Amino acid sequence: MNLATSVLAGERLALARLLSKVENNTQEGLATLNELFPHTGRAHLVGVTGAPGTGKSSLVNQLAYFFRHPPEEQTSRTVAIIAVDPSSPFTGGAILGDRVRMQDLAGDQGVFIRSMAARGSLGGLASATASLVQIFDAAGYEIIFIETVGAGQAEVDIARLAHSTIVVEAPGLGDEIQSIKAGILEIADILVVNKADRPGVESTERALRNMLQLGHPITYSQKQSRSSEKVDLLQPQTGSPLWIPPVLCTVATQGDGVSELVKAIFDHRQYLHDTGQWEQKERNRLKNELDNLLRENLVARWRATIQKSDYQHVLDSLVARRISPHQAVVNLLDGSSPGQS
Amino acid sequence: MNLATSVLAGERLALARLLSKVENNTQEGLATLNELFPHTGRAHLVGVTGAPGTGKSSLVNQLAYFFRHPPEEQTSRTVAIIAVDPSSPFTGGAILGDRVRMQDLAGDQGVFIRSMAARGSLGGLASATASLVQIFDAAGYEIIFIETVGAGQAEVDIARLAHSTIVVEAPGLGDEIQSIKAGILEIADILVVNKADRPGVESTERALRNMLQLGHPITYSQKQSRSSEKVDLLQPQTGSPLWIPPVLCTVATQGDGVSELVKAIFDHRQYLHDTGQWEQKERNRLKNELDNLLRENLVARWRATIQKSDYQHVLDSLVARRISPHQAVVNLLDGSSPGQS
Repeated sequence: MNLATSVLAGERLALARLLSKVENNTQEGLATLNELFPHTGRAHLVGVTGAPGTGKSSLVNQLAYFFRHPPEEQTSRTVAIIAVDPSSPFTGGAILGDRVRMQDLAGDQGVFIRSMAARGSLGGLASATASLVQIFDAAGYEIIFIETVGAGQAEVDIARLAHSTIVVEAPGLGDEIQSIKAGILEIADILVVNKADRPGVESTERALRNMLQLGHPITYSQKQSRSSEKVDLLQPQTGSPLWIPPVLCTVATQGDGVSELVKAIFDHRQYLHDTGQWEQKERNRLKNELDNLLRENLVARWRATIQKSDYQHVLDSLVARRISPHQAVVNLLDGSSPGQS
Repeated sequence: MNLATSVLAGERLALARLLSKVENNTQEGLATLNELFPHTGRAHLVGVTGAPGTGKSSLVNQLAYFFRHPPEEQTSRTVAIIAVDPSSPFTGGAILGDRVRMQDLAGDQGVFIRSMAARGSLGGLASATASLVQIFDAAGYEIIFIETVGAGQAEVDIARLAHSTIVVEAPGLGDEIQSIKAGILEIADILVVNKADRPGVESTERALRNMLQLGHPITYSQKQSRSSEKVDLLQPQTGSPLWIPPVLCTVATQGDGVSELVKAIFDHRQYLHDTGQWEQKERNRLKNELDNLLRENLVARWRATIQKSDYQHVLDSLVARRISPHQAVVNLLDGSSPGQS
């Protein structure tokens, strides 16, 4: 039985072996990825992002626990968690994170947790994450959480991998002008104020609602003014109903609000399917992945063609300020000798 | 008089015009950048990074004000501020930020402030920032602050542009396991606990010192045990004295601690010059910039060679899961027909 077959059969050891092979960029890993790809496309990919200290990891643990042990009338689902840390190119923080989590979900065969620290480049991180998502998807995990730290471009890139994106906040981050939030809000399908037992939760919730209102000025105020009715606002361009990101409060350490959050995740999936946006997201997601891989490959192939000494020569001219960075690029790609402009 | 000459002569209008031309990627902008490059290499580039809510912008404003109006015995210096917001690809937050800052430093001809929101890709952001740095450097600005939001890979990339990197924290961000901090600490030359009039400042300061001690286990404890003496610890590899990042407390809104921070910035510059690391940083900085530009150019050149319909055909096969992402890349780069593996 080859590796792909074992992974498709749900063997955890084979899965772990494949994850390592793919992370180490081996030929066997790549070949197995290719074999598995036709079996992907079934999982619900849920991105979870937020600043450090918002309690994202505890929340994801609680969500995973809830999916594994739902109330009686619901079906239990298998869960994979990919914890991506784009900010830690130096230390082994990710591994420490794993240990802490394991205590909650240890021994459950329906849960798989994998951490990834940053590697060389951001593009590399995004495409490595995409590969891990494919493996878990092919292996039959039904919900895949992609958890990222922070709120930078890295998170935006990784959020593009997900069908549903949850942005986690916590009370007490101050009320300074935070243009960062305006940006991150626009990728949020669901907003969570975690640590809702702390002081300041009302003002954080209000701030988030205000920002949402800035983003959806008319629709959001209509929704609020008749919040008891079912609202079916339409998107101007497509005519499909509009998704208005709910703002939910949780206390992850107690499990408070987790069932409401799970309901919102299911609602969002239903919304995507009903409006045809699921297919659109799949296409964007795969296009994004293709473009990342193309970029990496173009650079790697070019690197393989160039003499190291030629590169050093051009770099020397640049450092001596005989040529500018743009001229250096022209010299390297067009092969004119360094020093000319 | 051409644009480059006007910029070198210190004309603000010409400078503003060039910044726009470069941001819009015009040919004239590029040509002027090439002309200006030999005049760069004099400015001290200071990166300032930290999570939202730490008061980075106020701190940078205060630093700029101090450099403009130093105590009597010191020389005043010209200051440029580039505020980079990698997290805001969507909204005009950066512009709002500008307005707020202008009130502090308005009318001073020795200060120039420019905000940049994210554009297409992170690589694009880093190289656009690098171009802005070159322009300000050539125009004679002595201190150039590169201020970034957050603590992700984007910030690490942009910190690579700087000679000295200041990481700003604030009390009360919680004491959860924050592997993110361990990462960001390793790029810090100077650590600042801003908002030091708030409760919790001692524990934040202690946490930072503990993390530093994890990073420099032996050296740091030696330094602490004889903190009254001048310490000259040596780097294991190069034999130069070791720089131990100081931890400083500030209240930016009051200006408290700003003069000590300015002193630390000067000390770090002196240290870089004394140990030959300034030249090393310049080389790494320019190599990094060259590699970013190479990546962008390789992708742009390849894009120009490919038929849009061929790309769409491969993407369609990918979305239908007839080929995997890696197979799609091989098809596009090697020209075999989609569907083959």
